[in-house]
Amino acid sequence: MKTLEGIRILDLSQALSGPFCTMQLADHGAEVIKVEAPDGGDITRKWLPQIHGKSAYFTTHNRNKKSITLDLRVPEGKKVFLNLVETADVVVDNYRGGTMQKYGLTHDVLKEVNPKIITASISGYGNWGPTSKRPAFGITIEAESGFMDLTGFPDGAPVKSGNSVADILTGTFAAYAICMALYRREKTGEGQSIDVSMLDTMFHAMEASPLVTYLTGEPPHRTGNRTPAGTPMDAYEASDGYCVFLAPVWTQWEALCRLMGHEELIGNPEYADYTMLKKHEEEITDWINEWSRTLTREELGQQLGQNGIAFSYVLDVKESMNNPQIKARDMVVELDDSKMGKIQVQGIPAKMSVTPGAVETSAPELGQDNEAIYSKIGLTEEDMKNLREKGII
Amino acid sequence: MKTLEGIRILDLSQALSGPFCTMQLADHGAEVIKVEAPDGGDITRKWLPQIHGKSAYFTTHNRNKKSITLDLRVPEGKKVFLNLVETADVVVDNYRGGTMQKYGLTHDVLKEVNPKIITASISGYGNWGPTSKRPAFGITIEAESGFMDLTGFPDGAPVKSGNSVADILTGTFAAYAICMALYRREKTGEGQSIDVSMLDTMFHAMEASPLVTYLTGEPPHRTGNRTPAGTPMDAYEASDGYCVFLAPVWTQWEALCRLMGHEELIGNPEYADYTMLKKHEEEITDWINEWSRTLTREELGQQLGQNGIAFSYVLDVKESMNNPQIKARDMVVELDDSKMGKIQVQGIPAKMSVTPGAVETSAPELGQDNEAIYSKIGLTEEDMKNLREKGII
Repeated sequence: MKTLEGIRILDLSQALSGPFCTMQLADHGAEVIKVEAPDGGDITRKWLPQIHGKSAYFTTHNRNKKSITLDLRVPEGKKVFLNLVETADVVVDNYRGGTMQKYGLTHDVLKEVNPKIITASISGYGNWGPTSKRPAFGITIEAESGFMDLTGFPDGAPVKSGNSVADILTGTFAAYAICMALYRREKTGEGQSIDVSMLDTMFHAMEASPLVTYLTGEPPHRTGNRTPAGTPMDAYEASDGYCVFLAPVWTQWEALCRLMGHEELIGNPEYADYTMLKKHEEEITDWINEWSRTLTREELGQQLGQNGIAFSYVLDVKESMNNPQIKARDMVVELDDSKMGKIQVQGIPAKMSVTPGAVETSAPELGQDNEAIYSKIGLTEEDMKNLREKGII
Repeated sequence: MKTLEGIRILDLSQALSGPFCTMQLADHGAEVIKVEAPDGGDITRKWLPQIHGKSAYFTTHNRNKKSITLDLRVPEGKKVFLNLVETADVVVDNYRGGTMQKYGLTHDVLKEVNPKIITASISGYGNWGPTSKRPAFGITIEAESGFMDLTGFPDGAPVKSGNSVADILTGTFAAYAICMALYRREKTGEGQSIDVSMLDTMFHAMEASPLVTYLTGEPPHRTGNRTPAGTPMDAYEASDGYCVFLAPVWTQWEALCRLMGHEELIGNPEYADYTMLKKHEEEITDWINEWSRTLTREELGQQLGQNGIAFSYVLDVKESMNNPQIKARDMVVELDDSKMGKIQVQGIPAKMSVTPGAVETSAPELGQDNEAIYSKIGLTEEDMKNLREKGII
């Protein structure tokens, strides 16, 4: 028994924010039915790299899901969709703000056929507000939220996150909001609509920066891998790569002085607290790198670990996949894909003790579940043939 | 009525991942009681900057919460804690893996006094696995997951995210898992324990990188603000700052050629598709910058917007706070803080139509709710005085 077993989700979303959201729900047992445009479906089905005729990107974010095709823009398609809504618990979309209104598929319309329906709209800017209809991508939202200005080195350009963190965080927020609404519905019998935007979410995630800006009048600036709170913290150089470490406890700093052969700093009044260390940051960074460059990452990690200093190597994705901790926690899962054959994708982060999730099926082919799903809402072979000929499914 | 009204959460967490999780739950009506060590409490209470004797960082992540003090390491403290657990729905901690076991406060122990209890442990590495007991920070997890290696410019060092994305994403995953477990409990009456680690979560968020690495044998590399999928996409230079834009639709590319006065590229077989554009990326980037540098961000945005091209300025936090969209969606909220006076903090991303959340109170002083909470579980004035003298509350 999985946590969300019995929940049926109609998923109108594509690319990342929506599919990342519904992947979380599918991983925990919800029946997620991707409702895709008949002329190609989810845009990421076409994204590179294509391997054995299938997109790696699409395959990663759509495991455990079903796929049906349906053109929501025509009356016959809408009618079929509303029949599906009668059987569903949740409808998820990530159209640009206002699109469900344009399609005539607002929460109010859906509620008429299913009074308990929960709808969740994920978008760049949300369903209301002066710029709600503007197009957005993860990178433009990183820029607009203030996030990108704080990422990168002080003497270099601002830089985006290595993954599309705006989509991923917003998708996770939407999954959380949907589960809240499901909980509430158990209590009251009532559904509701949820609106989550990438801009709101990324701004919400700016930690204390807005409050500090409000109180001091000055926004913070990017600091590379360092922190205004003190030193040492950085990605230091080993002979075979980078190693991140920090010493926020004073005894760790003293241990570090010994390791790098600068015992004279211990007890030196010029280096008496973190504020003073911060003033000597360039010098200290040089000393650390002079020492760390003489060691491999492995040797460095051993010395740091023995002294209780938190560290990690900067691993590439291949190294990360081979991390024993990642393996021990089933974070790399093997699946059979109908086109790609044996594949490896990420496992499930939320480890539930009583009702654990599972990755069971690879991403669906476009429309592979048409017959199974449509026959259950009463469409005959004839009906489906008819809709297929019109390009509606 | 808020979505999680009636839910009581005992929050043993500090710093960011745990408090960010419970902030989401408190924003939506759960009663979140921070259970803090009597000798100073949440470590972020001491973090800089301190303004009017209170930490901006702590204040940001603990609005809407209550605070009591309790020493969990001594038998008398544990006893009081178990009395509290009887009244609670959820216990959240973000100790290093294994700490709740060390304290004798495992899920099994808590379940004896409250059979329906849900427990959620958030940590760097999780409660099991070969490195579960290692210390971790957001930046070390960014390094270990593969995320940092993909963030930054190809010719520069890897760089961390501008906020602690590992804590924030993991906190959100934990909030999502807790709401799933609350939903499940309504169905079955059964609680459970949840284990969410920053490493698992960040690895899960690596998009298609693991699958591509598995299929091709080669991990991806960092690309700055560009994408392997094509060009143009970058943070381009305006006369007064950076502006991010991209033209993933071919008519947008053609519009851009016209805007920058390079109509000769349209129809040129050397620039016939995105793969060919990518080969000319340096050249194209130079042309765009030569044009964009002659315009202010505002002028540039106007021209791009008129041509349906998705863009955003790279805003600093102050500019972001003044974004009309941010304001229209109540993403900057004003509060009265007992020490700081009037403050502004972030609003709530999950917009719920029937049971909306609200930001109502600023972060609590250490132990401010001792009397109110402890008197309700039957502790007398005398009991509390006694515990206070022993340093247990």
